[in-house]
Amino acid sequence: MSTLTRAADIVGAAHLLTDTADTAAYTTDWRQRFHGRPLAVALPATTGQVAALVQLSRDTGTPLVPQGGNTGTVGGATPDASGRALVIALRRMNAIRAVDRDNATVTAEAGCTLAEVQAAAAGHGLLYPLSLASEGSCQIGGNLAANAGGLAVLRYGNTRELTLGIEAVLPDGQVIHALKGLRKNNSGFDAKQLFIGTEGIFGIITAATLKLYPQPNARATALVGIDSPAAAVALLHELHDRFGDRLTTFELISGQCLSLVAHHVPEVRLPFDCAWSVLFELSDGGEQAALDAQLFDWLDGRDAFVDAVLAQSGRERRELWRLREEISEAQRRDGPSIKHDIAVPVSAIPAFLDSCGRQLETAFPGCRIVTFGHLGDGNLHYNISHTRPGNTALFDDEQRVNEIVFSCAYAFDGTLSAEHGVGQLRRHWLARFHDPASMSLMRTLKTALDPAGLMNPGKLL
Amino acid sequence: MSTLTRAADIVGAAHLLTDTADTAAYTTDWRQRFHGRPLAVALPATTGQVAALVQLSRDTGTPLVPQGGNTGTVGGATPDASGRALVIALRRMNAIRAVDRDNATVTAEAGCTLAEVQAAAAGHGLLYPLSLASEGSCQIGGNLAANAGGLAVLRYGNTRELTLGIEAVLPDGQVIHALKGLRKNNSGFDAKQLFIGTEGIFGIITAATLKLYPQPNARATALVGIDSPAAAVALLHELHDRFGDRLTTFELISGQCLSLVAHHVPEVRLPFDCAWSVLFELSDGGEQAALDAQLFDWLDGRDAFVDAVLAQSGRERRELWRLREEISEAQRRDGPSIKHDIAVPVSAIPAFLDSCGRQLETAFPGCRIVTFGHLGDGNLHYNISHTRPGNTALFDDEQRVNEIVFSCAYAFDGTLSAEHGVGQLRRHWLARFHDPASMSLMRTLKTALDPAGLMNPGKLL
Repeated sequence: MSTLTRAADIVGAAHLLTDTADTAAYTTDWRQRFHGRPLAVALPATTGQVAALVQLSRDTGTPLVPQGGNTGTVGGATPDASGRALVIALRRMNAIRAVDRDNATVTAEAGCTLAEVQAAAAGHGLLYPLSLASEGSCQIGGNLAANAGGLAVLRYGNTRELTLGIEAVLPDGQVIHALKGLRKNNSGFDAKQLFIGTEGIFGIITAATLKLYPQPNARATALVGIDSPAAAVALLHELHDRFGDRLTTFELISGQCLSLVAHHVPEVRLPFDCAWSVLFELSDGGEQAALDAQLFDWLDGRDAFVDAVLAQSGRERRELWRLREEISEAQRRDGPSIKHDIAVPVSAIPAFLDSCGRQLETAFPGCRIVTFGHLGDGNLHYNISHTRPGNTALFDDEQRVNEIVFSCAYAFDGTLSAEHGVGQLRRHWLARFHDPASMSLMRTLKTALDPAGLMNPGKLL
Repeated sequence: MSTLTRAADIVGAAHLLTDTADTAAYTTDWRQRFHGRPLAVALPATTGQVAALVQLSRDTGTPLVPQGGNTGTVGGATPDASGRALVIALRRMNAIRAVDRDNATVTAEAGCTLAEVQAAAAGHGLLYPLSLASEGSCQIGGNLAANAGGLAVLRYGNTRELTLGIEAVLPDGQVIHALKGLRKNNSGFDAKQLFIGTEGIFGIITAATLKLYPQPNARATALVGIDSPAAAVALLHELHDRFGDRLTTFELISGQCLSLVAHHVPEVRLPFDCAWSVLFELSDGGEQAALDAQLFDWLDGRDAFVDAVLAQSGRERRELWRLREEISEAQRRDGPSIKHDIAVPVSAIPAFLDSCGRQLETAFPGCRIVTFGHLGDGNLHYNISHTRPGNTALFDDEQRVNEIVFSCAYAFDGTLSAEHGVGQLRRHWLARFHDPASMSLMRTLKTALDPAGLMNPGKLL
């Protein structure tokens, strides 16, 4: 029996896509930089079917490419062009298996969208705090495989910190059943850590048990203008000292970003003009008025800001957030850019911005740097455009731009990817950021668990 | 050259202990249940010396037993009786390598005591929130290898969540240099996860970079009497809804515990008599008076408590805490007990207590159950004494008691160890709590990384 016949027997013929028209949505990544050609796309409905597909892969030497909502930005879920790989799309595995109110956990299958998990939590009066621009289409399995971050990591952690249990199929076809919803469990190697953030190279995640939190009653949002990134770092620490983990979000935004927003999204009004801004938010389980008053008193006692706006209503809060949310759209309208997603220690952010900016300006006089990001996590979206007049032939300069940005991130003890991962896009940079023993460890684990290299080949390693 | 000669060359003859009098402190565990006889105890001073000792182990087939402060309770750092193993005690590696105030991180060598790390953080106005009874002698390397928990996990997480970077020597002698202090880093397998909570079977931790937090300005502490564990779970959620992560500690204490304290530590005064109590604490960066008022208002609005005491001063706070802290001493004075350290989902705590208590009472009429613990983490210290009149021959019943307690924890989707680990003590129970694929995964990793089985043999697996 052919591989395709066997795959169709496992998932049902209707759930094995082979026509190009049917597979197209699974073979190009979201940013349309990576294109592949698969043997087929299989849509399993159960963990047993996933395990059977993995067994089929072993029997026939068929490479597997697990895929969630296909919203990744590094080509981590796109098959190669060989026509040999079977894409395993998890979207039919979209059951919320359980919500345990008193344990504050949800168990969701890998193909649930993030929004579905958020809704399941909200239905029990709880919060699943992961929040991403793609939350309507990205899936939980992909969130885990990418260790997704987002806007509230400062308060709630990355996906890794939100994950208590996992169910996953190993490359040998065995199923890890470790969906326990325990806050403490010291009984050997924590199997979920093998799958979180490793982009599917060690197996296929089929379900997860995730932490939930109380829904905040009150949110207080402010935009403050400051004159330097160093002032932002100082502000972060002052807010942490006073408000602890009620500080949920702390976003640094360059003046360049807001200018782009004002230019390309004219319906958005800038409250002030400043070299740098910080958008931050507090959340709390108490009364809105009390939180507003606490933040007002705190802001009122300081003169370190060039300017400050405190949202007085839900509408004003949404307007402030829109400034941040429209940055990506404004950049898109402005033209192409070379995007980075680096992190350095929070303490190194000012020096990184200074050093990297100088080096880029020297190499590409007049280049445009659009930077913003989750300063509380040391994570900057650091995007470069206009390396040449008119922003022409930008990607011809990509390698040189990357060399400068990545070298600078490395010099400040940083990483090539805070959130988006390695995938195909950054694979050849990986060894630059790890010591030889860490690279060797990853390869040893890969060889031990997937000796034939069938699990998401060509990604990460 | 003999193994001992080569070891002496590596660490210096003065730092290789071979006399029984010198090695005694390293060959018996803290609870004095495990006793071993080593080839020698080596006290390396640098990561390079540790790597050289690992290389020596490979060359000569010498088993290695890493040891921190030797405060573990499961025999995880005690050598066997063969006289073949080299104990690697890390205590000379006790430098605080760096404190980064603006990044809120400390980098400490494995042999620093927890108290030394707490002090280094406090010296920069910051908090290292891990807090254990043994903090004056337990060491950071052991904290990581055991994924230590303690009183503030509810707010700050386990050691796993507090660890950002690691330096460790793999069983092949390579050194993992991954001490980056990054809150976000999605660049492949997170090497530190291999060493955290795995009790030294995958290598020797030599240093770690740890998260620091603001020192709270205010703490509000209360003891409330309730009539059932279910009422405690409800109280936990109400406090979380209102105060979020300002709820730092939430300890369930049975009436039996407080009776023992009153009996054996007569200078301690019980504020009230109740079937169950909860000791909880809020911490905050604002003013003490404001936090006290918020908690007072919240308590004042409820009638669900049998009784409640709110600490009005630092002295009263310490008195309330002493009730909790003296439980272990009161138990010790009362006689031996069979101790467990289980966790179940928070939602299952009431049913676990009911079911396990009934089964034990049926098997051992009149047995005494002393239970207390970190209810917010689903973690109970669950100790049994008096299985026979006069508490005689208690340990003859240990196997049957364990069978009941562990079976019950398993039935409620729990774990055999929330905090203390597996070591030698619970090794033969491990497979009961993991599915075959998870056990197979652990063995595959062990074989791949330590094929000769020289790294802390006889522990965990």
